[in-house]
Parts: sequence; C-alpha cells; structure tokens
Amino acid sequence: MEFVRNQWYVAAYGTEIGRELFSRTVCGESILLWRTEAGTVVATSDRCVHRRFPLSEPPSHLVGDTVVCGYHGFTYGADGVCVAVPGQTRIPRTARLSAYPVKEQDSFVWVWIGERALADESLIPRAPWLRMAGYTTVYGMEPLAARYDLLVDNLLDLSHETYLHGGYIGTPEVANTPITTEVDEDRGIVYVSRHMDDAECPPFYSRSTGIEGRIVRWQDIEYHPPCLYLLHSRIAPVGVYPEADGTDAHAFHVEVVYAITPETETSTHDFWAVARDFALDDQDVSDFLEQSNRTVVLQDVAALNKLEQVIASEPDGYQELSINIDTGGLAARRILRRMAAASPPPARAAAR
Amino acid sequence: MEFVRNQWYVAAYGTEIGRELFSRTVCGESILLWRTEAGTVVATSDRCVHRRFPLSEPPSHLVGDTVVCGYHGFTYGADGVCVAVPGQTRIPRTARLSAYPVKEQDSFVWVWIGERALADESLIPRAPWLRMAGYTTVYGMEPLAARYDLLVDNLLDLSHETYLHGGYIGTPEVANTPITTEVDEDRGIVYVSRHMDDAECPPFYSRSTGIEGRIVRWQDIEYHPPCLYLLHSRIAPVGVYPEADGTDAHAFHVEVVYAITPETETSTHDFWAVARDFALDDQDVSDFLEQSNRTVVLQDVAALNKLEQVIASEPDGYQELSINIDTGGLAARRILRRMAAASPPPARAAAR
Amino acid sequence: MEFVRNQWYVAAYGTEIGRELFSRTVCGESILLWRTEAGTVVATSDRCVHRRFPLSEPPSHLVGDTVVCGYHGFTYGADGVCVAVPGQTRIPRTARLSAYPVKEQDSFVWVWIGERALADESLIPRAPWLRMAGYTTVYGMEPLAARYDLLVDNLLDLSHETYLHGGYIGTPEVANTPITTEVDEDRGIVYVSRHMDDAECPPFYSRSTGIEGRIVRWQDIEYHPPCLYLLHSRIAPVGVYPEADGTDAHAFHVEVVYAITPETETSTHDFWAVARDFALDDQDVSDFLEQSNRTVVLQDVAALNKLEQVIASEPDGYQELSINIDTGGLAARRILRRMAAASPPPARAAAR
Repeated sequence: MEFVRNQWYVAAYGTEIGRELFSRTVCGESILLWRTEAGTVVATSDRCVHRRFPLSEPPSHLVGDTVVCGYHGFTYGADGVCVAVPGQTRIPRTARLSAYPVKEQDSFVWVWIGERALADESLIPRAPWLRMAGYTTVYGMEPLAARYDLLVDNLLDLSHETYLHGGYIGTPEVANTPITTEVDEDRGIVYVSRHMDDAECPPFYSRSTGIEGRIVRWQDIEYHPPCLYLLHSRIAPVGVYPEADGTDAHAFHVEVVYAITPETETSTHDFWAVARDFALDDQDVSDFLEQSNRTVVLQDVAALNKLEQVIASEPDGYQELSINIDTGGLAARRILRRMAAASPPPARAAAR
Repeated sequence: MEFVRNQWYVAAYGTEIGRELFSRTVCGESILLWRTEAGTVVATSDRCVHRRFPLSEPPSHLVGDTVVCGYHGFTYGADGVCVAVPGQTRIPRTARLSAYPVKEQDSFVWVWIGERALADESLIPRAPWLRMAGYTTVYGMEPLAARYDLLVDNLLDLSHETYLHGGYIGTPEVANTPITTEVDEDRGIVYVSRHMDDAECPPFYSRSTGIEGRIVRWQDIEYHPPCLYLLHSRIAPVGVYPEADGTDAHAFHVEVVYAITPETETSTHDFWAVARDFALDDQDVSDFLEQSNRTVVLQDVAALNKLEQVIASEPDGYQELSINIDTGGLAARRILRRMAAASPPPARAAAR
Repeated sequence: MEFVRNQWYVAAYGTEIGRELFSRTVCGESILLWRTEAGTVVATSDRCVHRRFPLSEPPSHLVGDTVVCGYHGFTYGADGVCVAVPGQTRIPRTARLSAYPVKEQDSFVWVWIGERALADESLIPRAPWLRMAGYTTVYGMEPLAARYDLLVDNLLDLSHETYLHGGYIGTPEVANTPITTEVDEDRGIVYVSRHMDDAECPPFYSRSTGIEGRIVRWQDIEYHPPCLYLLHSRIAPVGVYPEADGTDAHAFHVEVVYAITPETETSTHDFWAVARDFALDDQDVSDFLEQSNRTVVLQDVAALNKLEQVIASEPDGYQELSINIDTGGLAARRILRRMAAASPPPARAAAR
C-alpha cells in the first residue's frame, strides 16, 4: 500500500522530545525533532541542505535554539532557515530545511505529512483520556518490522486475542462472538463492536479490576484512518449495564489507544497506550497493565514481523480468504486505498 | 536455473517428522509436515488460507489430527480441509490447504512438487541400502546457502576430493584418474565411473575397513536428476576383484547417498547418508564415518557458499572453462535444463 | 558514479603482500595478489577459470611460484597461465587468468584497471615522501562502506575539520578561511589552498611539533583523480614564512596522502599516510600521529557510512546545495564524470 499523505501522524510521545536532537522517520521522511528553550516542539527535515548529513547525528548539536550540522557547520533556526554557513557570510536564499506542521495533543506529537498549506489542526483525531483527569495511563512504543496495514488488520479483528493472546486478554468468547461493523463513509471512520454478555474474565482485567467470576465485556472499536485506533473497552460483572441516563458507575472502563505510524513501506511505529478510570493511584495496577499490554503488543509484533517475511518471500498474486470477522479490516483497507489514491506524490528533493 | 517441477523431492528424513509441526521449504514452497496419531506423514501448505500465518509457527499447534492456526484459530484436518473458523459456523467451501502427495521410502519423506494429478509413486528413485538388512547407515542434513546446481556440479566431479577433501577422502589418484561417463537419455540418468586399481587408501576408508596398504577403489556414480545422487563405492586390497559369478565377499561396499533438494533459488537442503556392508554393529566405525562425512559435507558447503557469493557479485555473462572431468556435470546440467523447460509454472495463490 | 577505468589504482601497501595469497577488490574486480620467491608482486584475477573458485580462498595455496586452486587443483604460474589441470595432460589454450599490470612505488602496490595495452607506468602519480630520506611516515587503511565520491568530497572540503574533527585537527579558522581553487584541465588535477596566517594550533600539530601559541597554517591540496590525494600541510609559528630562496627550515611540513580506491559501487578502500620532516626518530610522535590520524579517518568513515545509508534510502532526484567551499569538490566531480564517460566498459568474462 502506498503511503497516505496529507494526513496527521503521531511522530512521538511529547515525553520523548527534549533538548536532545531526535530523529524519527514517518512515511519514509526523516524528521528532526527537538524542543526550543521555551518548550515548543520543532519538526524539520533531518538532512542538512548542503551534503545531506543527518542533523540528528553527532556531532550535530543544539546551540540555544539553533541546530549546528556536525559535518560542515551549517546552522539552522527553529523555523528551518539557515543562519550560518562556513567560509562566507552570504547565506544562500534557498538554504532552509523543510519544516513540518506540528501539534502536541493528547500526549502525542502529531506531524503533518503532505502539502503544508493543507495542514489543519482541527483534523487531528482525539484521544483525550491520555491526559484527562479521572484516568491513569500507561504507554509505550514498539518498532514493528512490518507494513502498517498488517497492524490495521490485526487491531480491527480482535478474534485473534483468543489464539495469539491467550492467558492475557483472550478468552474463547472473543473469537466466538460475532461482530457488528459500521462505516461512516463521509468521515472515513470504521466502527467494529463485539458485546459479550457472559464471558470469562481474562487475567488482564481480573487482576486489574479485582472482579471475580464472569463478566459483561464490550469491545467498541473506532478506527480513524490512517493513524488513530481507539478501543473503548467496558468490563462489568455479569448483569451490570449502564443506567438509563447513560451513567455507568459500576463498570470499569479502559481506553486502549494505538497510533499506527508508517516508518517505511515495510516498517511501522506501534504506539500503544492504556488509560483506565479505576485504581487511579495504584502503582501495582499500572505496572501490571503496562507489562501485560507490552507483552500483548510484542506477541503481535512477533506475528506481524513473521507475516512481513512471508509476504516478502511469496509469489505475486497470493489470495487471502476473508470471513465475517474481517468486515472491519476490509472496510479499513478500502478507505486507506481511497485515501492513498487521492494522496499527492511526495515532493522531490524533500529536504528543501 | 529454474526449479524443475512435476518431480519428487526429499523434504525430510522420516525421523524428523513427529507430533510437532515442522516446516520445510522445497522449490520455494513452504510445506507443513506432521505425523497423524496413526503415524502417517501429512504434507500441506504451511500458510493459513485466511491471513497467511505460518501454521508451523507458535502458537499454532496440533489438536489430535487437526492443526489450529495460532493467529485466528482456523482449524484444518489432515487432508487440508478447514473444519473450523472463528465467529461463524459456516465454513467457506474454498477454505482448504493445498495438500502435497507424500511418500515415506528408504528413510526419506518424499513430496511431489507440481501438478497433483501427475504424482506417480513408482517414479521415486530408490536408495534401498538406507533401510536394508546387511547395511548400517549414518546420515545428516546440512543447509547450503547456494543454488542446487552447484552441489550437482560438485558431486558429479569427484576430482575435487583430492584438493578440497585431502586428509579425509581425497588422494592424488582421484584427480589423476580419468573418468568414463554414460548418459541414459531415455531415463534421464547420468553415470560417471572412476576405477583406480592401485591407489592410496584415504583415512575415511583405512580407519573404517582396517585395510593397510594400497587399494582397488571404484567410484560408480548414478545421478537421478533432479534430486537423488548415489555413489557406489567399492574398496578392496590391491588385486582383489569381484568373482566371476558377481559375488564380492572380499571387498568393502559403501553406498553414499545425497538428496539434493532446492529450498530457494539460492539455497539447498543437502541430505547425505553413508551405508556400509561391514562392521555393522561397530559404533566406533559409525561415529567415525558420521563425523568424517559430515566434515567433508561441511567442506563442500563452505566452498559452495563462497561460489554462490561469487556468482551474486560477478557481472553477467561470466564464462566457465570445462575439461574432461566435467563431462558428467555438463550432462547433468543439460538434462536439468531440459526438465526445467518442460516444467509447468507454479500455480498462483499456491496456498489454495 | 561509474567506475573510472584505464587508470592506476592503489590495491595495497607493499607490506601487505607476501607469501600468503591475498585478495582485494578494486573497481568491482577481485584481484589475487602475492609475491614470487624473488620478491616481485603478482596480480591476477582471483577466480579459477574452471568453476570460478576464489584462488585466495583456502585450501587454495602457493607452491613455489604457482597457485593451486583449492577446489579441483587447476594450477597457474605467476603470469596467470595454467600449467596443470586434473585428469588430463592437455591444458586448454584459453586456460589463463587475466593478469593485471602492477607496479610497486612509493610504498603502494598500484594496479591498472582497464585495457592492458594502455597501461603506462609513467602515468602513476607520485607520493615520494612515503619512502624518502628525511621523512618519517605512519600509515593505515580503513574500509569505508560508502561510494568513493563521498570521500573525494570530504577530502576536498576541509572546512569539515572544524566540526567533525574538533579536538584533533579542526579549529575555527579552518571553516572561516576562504579557499582558492585552481583546476589544471589538461592534466586533470584539482588544487585547493587555504592559507591561515594566525590560527589556533590544533592538538595534532601542537603535540607533534611542540609549538606553543598561534600558528601560520597552510593547507595545499593536490588531487590527482581518481585515486591520489595529497595535502601539503605547512605549520610554523605566527610570522614565520619561507625564505626568499624557497628554503623553509623553520617550518614543519606534513605530507598527508590518501589513496582512494573504489572497491564496489558503494564501498571504498581508504588508504591514508602521514609523512613528516621533523622528529624523525621520535617513536612517541609517530605513535601519536598514527593514533590521531586513524581516529580522524574513522570519524570520516562513520560520517560517510551514514551518508551512504542516507543515499540508499532517499528518493531519486535529491538536490544538494553547494557554496564557495565546494568549488574544489565540484571540480573533482566534473573531472571524474568526464573520465567515467571516456572510460571503456569492463570486459565480459573478466576472469579470462
């Protein structure tokens, strides 16, 4: 699948970016990230315009709010404009790094990949629980050596929890319970729901919530292509449902958030976060959920890395077989293909 | 060289296949091998029809005589037919793994690569000594990071024993003695013979047979393209020849068997076995022959892996120079080319 | 950039070549190097004409002044002509290794890449200080995983010393002082000079010369494309210049020599030597200059290896931005392109 451009992508957690030069590749573009002395995140091309040396590579370094290239000393301001070159005082007019629209929101650093003029911050999808009072969040990022659509497939079909994540979040009911899928074609959002009214409680939830016995378990997925995936997870003892007025004080709510950022055509940044509305100050629960979710993510990573190898070695024209559980994933692929077709090609000479 | 299809290949030793899921790639096809509870070897595609997850990859596993995919739980019988899928009771009609004709014979597991309808077990070439009363066999398999035709070349020109395998099986007489070559064009078999009447006895034979002094050494090669190579080796004290009636009680006979199975276009499974008609119960002789032959095979592997690297880095159109010793190898190449030209292309979407 | 053929290249230091078979790839050609019993360096193709086995690969070996192939025993004289083959006495007329014109000079082993008839030893550029009375030399070779033009760029623009080699040979004046560039179009030589009259003395020179305080520092570069780069470095206390008669007894002279030999299209042999006309017998100074220059070379290697990776991953059509300091490098590229365009294609079947 081609990269979908003219879109916002998560480049990093805000906590990753400080006064060290930081590099991350998004949709094949190497982006330099750092924070000004005033605390604002800066995102520019990570290639010096002179001889393409990576500005994130030592001995490149920050001096105040300028970046000094470690090869020949070309120096750039936070806006990407070159302010000094060696051996002469005249600075070429075209000496500037391309600068990326950037926005810190919901603990993520979002960057706009595509035509700068079209960047509209109001298009960034929200995951407010990650910084909301009343929620406690654990999070991480795992590098995935597989194309991002394999992760989209994976997350939109949770029947795999039963097999790949048994002992963590999978129980027989997940695979056995049919799903309902809805697609908002106008806004380009895919919804997949699986409501289990009498299910085994997997360790991930029994140990974190303290529930003993069987549960009502709702999984409501909301995928905002290309980058943001939300799983609204509701856990309650069997028979406990929301009140008529919509309040739901007797249930446990977990917001599982993934940001799915393509790195190259065959690798992906797999950002994951788990926000809960219970046991807010319980560090044991935080530690347990962090370890458990990381383990689950790494099980997916191992499986998807394997699939990427399979794809690399298989003949062209390989045909998959899809069934009902794939309805959400197939809808997502369709929307991504449509977005990619409408997407402009990358600018040549991207560093300027 | 293209793969030669519509042929039997050795996929494994029977001893390798049990109640663990086992994968081996033959002619670029990933094959899943396992043994039913009744003991029959099963060979199917190693890719789940749903999302191509390798069925040999944990947490995929056997349940009785069914294979459960570790990703979403698609379940298959020994015939490759899918018997369960997640989230629904209807199983798609086309949900089946391609099944390979398979035959256990002479200690090998043979699989048919090509059009299933043409698989004829009577075409499998024989190496009966590997399971014959009166013989004791040692064997192994070494992975070769080189195209299979380099191994065919190697085995059909034993003059290399003198140089590459000096101190093991090579003596000056091997390189110095001319060969005779015959080709059975109808049956597609290449015969290469080298009869030495007064030769030094290399350690491989002196230590295993106990012969002191010089020997009669016959090497009679029989290559059944593409996969099976037999070296009938006869060792006797100088002056000792078979009786007029064909009996040969005073000689030592060793049957050296190679199965040459292409894995990918540039890698090969190098199966080797050494069967002898003497010192049948002598474990020291078995251990010595196993270690020695493995060492010899690994010397070939190192040399051929190097040649594969040379080929990968050389310009197109490189010309070799051939001499008399290459007659057998050149005949083999000619037959393999003819077989490849007559060979059907691989089916698309091989997993179904 | 294509390889520039019909040129002399440094294949090795003379000290690297002895009675062991030695292989080095130059412009994509694998060359076998060894020294006869009389001490002459021999350079031939490193591929046996029979089955292309590398003659530098054990168990290939020297017997007197012949090379015996470790695979089937083809044997070659110092002129590359085959003198023995296995299994027959007649030796094919065409059985000969291509032999490379070779010349030992200035401590280097030069080989001619291209049409043998055009090899003219008088074309080899000189670096006489490496074996001249009155000079002491330290030297080494570092493998570079980058195309050779990146090293040419690097060496012709020494403004990078200030940034990449700060603390070794870089000071602010190097980057700040403008250069003068001259190109001898007829002889194809690029001259770049930077004369600093009042500069900080970097550790490389202060510790080796003993000068305290500021210096006159002249850098006079002479690049003989494709392979030889000379940096005439003159260091003296501030105010000390050559006498009117050209003598220069109160300055310190260092001849920094690089031989830039393409290995493959994306790798290079980076030969470096530092000859000085002072402290001739001072082993501490030799050790210090060897360690320091090796460190500086490895800083370049790290930066250029990174640039090679950047080039490999970037889209086509990337545009660099050049300024005044790049004048020498751009002239060198232009000459190299002209040489490459005039260069014959490699012979097919290069081994014969």
